[in-house]
Amino acid sequence: MAFLDSDSTTTRIACAQLTLRIGEPEANRAAARDAIERAAAAGAEVVVLPELTNSGCIFHDAAEAAAAAEPLDGPTVADWTAAARRHRLVIVGGLCERDGDGLIRNSAVLVDQTGLRAVHRKAHFFGGEQEFFVAGDELPPVVETSVGRIGVMVCYDQEFPEYVRTVVLRGAELLCVPVNWPLFPRPAGERPSEVVRVQANAAVNRMFVAACDRAGTERGVPWTGGSVIVDLDGFPVAGPATEKSADLLLADCALATARDKRLGEHNDVLGDRRPDLYRSVTTPLEEAR
Amino acid sequence: MAFLDSDSTTTRIACAQLTLRIGEPEANRAAARDAIERAAAAGAEVVVLPELTNSGCIFHDAAEAAAAAEPLDGPTVADWTAAARRHRLVIVGGLCERDGDGLIRNSAVLVDQTGLRAVHRKAHFFGGEQEFFVAGDELPPVVETSVGRIGVMVCYDQEFPEYVRTVVLRGAELLCVPVNWPLFPRPAGERPSEVVRVQANAAVNRMFVAACDRAGTERGVPWTGGSVIVDLDGFPVAGPATEKSADLLLADCALATARDKRLGEHNDVLGDRRPDLYRSVTTPLEEAR
Repeated sequence: MAFLDSDSTTTRIACAQLTLRIGEPEANRAAARDAIERAAAAGAEVVVLPELTNSGCIFHDAAEAAAAAEPLDGPTVADWTAAARRHRLVIVGGLCERDGDGLIRNSAVLVDQTGLRAVHRKAHFFGGEQEFFVAGDELPPVVETSVGRIGVMVCYDQEFPEYVRTVVLRGAELLCVPVNWPLFPRPAGERPSEVVRVQANAAVNRMFVAACDRAGTERGVPWTGGSVIVDLDGFPVAGPATEKSADLLLADCALATARDKRLGEHNDVLGDRRPDLYRSVTTPLEEAR
Repeated sequence: MAFLDSDSTTTRIACAQLTLRIGEPEANRAAARDAIERAAAAGAEVVVLPELTNSGCIFHDAAEAAAAAEPLDGPTVADWTAAARRHRLVIVGGLCERDGDGLIRNSAVLVDQTGLRAVHRKAHFFGGEQEFFVAGDELPPVVETSVGRIGVMVCYDQEFPEYVRTVVLRGAELLCVPVNWPLFPRPAGERPSEVVRVQANAAVNRMFVAACDRAGTERGVPWTGGSVIVDLDGFPVAGPATEKSADLLLADCALATARDKRLGEHNDVLGDRRPDLYRSVTTPLEEAR
C-alpha cells in the first residue's frame, strides 16, 4: 500500500453535512448520493455522512423509527457501496437499521469499493433514543482500508473518552463519527461543546477525527451543524461548519502520521498511559452496575 | 455545611498564575504568599497555584531538583497552611517535594484551615521529568473540604481522561490542577490545546476544573500562561489567561451543582457509561505492559 511508503501521503477526507427530511427516505438517499458525488468530484477519498442519514432522527414513536429502518442489504447501503466502487471511496454513514434479528438500531456503516466492511451499533444513547433503538454491545469497529485504519462510532459514543481509547488502542488513525448534535445555547464566541470534545479526543490520542453533523431544523429541533475535521494536535483543519446549511468540508490528512504517538523527545500519548492505575478503580457506582 | 442547603451557593475560585524563578525558593514562596493574600482579599475561598511553585521546573540535573526539594513539613507548606488558617482558604499548589523516603517528587498538596489534607505525586511525566522525579503510583486524592469535594492532579496527569474519570467517580466537584504548560505553536485564533483538554474534561464529567499555569520564560522555555477555570458545560468562566504575565483569575462556581450529572431529561454523563465495554479491552499494547 502506497501510504506505507511515506508519512507525508495525504488522504482527502470529506464531511458532507446535510439537511435531511424525516419521513422522506428517498429524498434523503438522493441528498446523500448527491453529496457523495460532489465529494468525489472534489477528490475526496473518505466521505463521512451524518447520523441516521436515511431516516432523520426526531421520531414520534417506535413505530415510526421501525418503519424508517432498512436492512444492511437495503437501498441506502446499496447506494453507498455503488458510489464507493465507482469512485474508489471509503464511505462512513449513519443508518436507521433493521438488523438480522429484526431489532431497530442506530448504526453506522463503513463501505468501500469491496462492499460493506463494518457496522457499528450506537452503544450510548442520547435523549429518548432507547424508546426507538436497541443499543449495541460491542466495541467500535476499526477497519483496515486502502487509505489507513478507520474507527467508526456514532455521536454520543464519542463523549466517552474510554470508548474512544478502545479504537486508538486497536490502531485507528482516523475516527469517523456520524452525528446529530442538537443545538444547545453557548456563550458568545465559544465553539459548540461537542466540537471541543472532538478536539480533545484527537489531541489526547494523536488521531484524526472527522465528525459529520446535520444542518437545519427537524420537528422543532435545530441542529448544531458543527461538522469538523481535526488533526493530531486537536486543531480543526476543516470547519467547524455552521448550523445554517448543508456544507462540504474537505481536508487533506496524512493518516499514517497518526501511527506515531510520540509527543516530543520523551513522550508517547499511549506509552505514557498507566493502565495499572485506571484498572484499579472500583467505585460504588461501578459496583452497583 | 451551608453548601448542602442550596445548589446555588457559590464558591469563589482563584487561579494565581505566577512568574517563578528557578534557584530562588524564597522569592517563589514570597510570590505565592503575595498572590494568596491578593486572592483572599478578592474573596477567594479556593486558591490554585502552579506546578512546582517552590522550585521552578527546568532543572539542569537531578542534583538541582533534589536541592530544591523540601518535605511536607517544610517552609512552603507551612506558608500555605498559615495562610489557609488565616483566611479560611483551601489552597492547592505544586511542590518540589522530598518525601519521607528521601525520594524527589513532583507533588501537589491540598491544605485548608485544619492543615495538610492531601498530597498527590504526579503519575504521568512530561519531557525529561523522570530524570528528576519518582512517579506516583496512586489515584489522585479527592478531599472533602468545607466548600465541596476537590480532586487534585498535576499537569500532564489531566491529559489522560481515564485518570480524570477516577476523581469524578469518587465524587469530585472541582478538579484543581497545578500545571506548567510549555508554550507550543498553535494556529492563529486557537486556544492552547491543553486548555481544550481541560474544557473537554469538565464537560464529559460535568465537573468544574481550575488549572493554574505559569507565566513568563524559564531557561529558554516560554510558558503557555493559559490558566483557566471551566464550568460543567466545558466553557471557561475565567481565563484563559495569556502567557505574558502573572494574573489572578477569579470565578464564582456553584460546586454542588457538579453532583448532578444529568444532561437533560434522559441522560447522565456517569450513568450513561458502559464500563462493561471498556473493561473488556485487552489490547496488545496493554498486554505488553
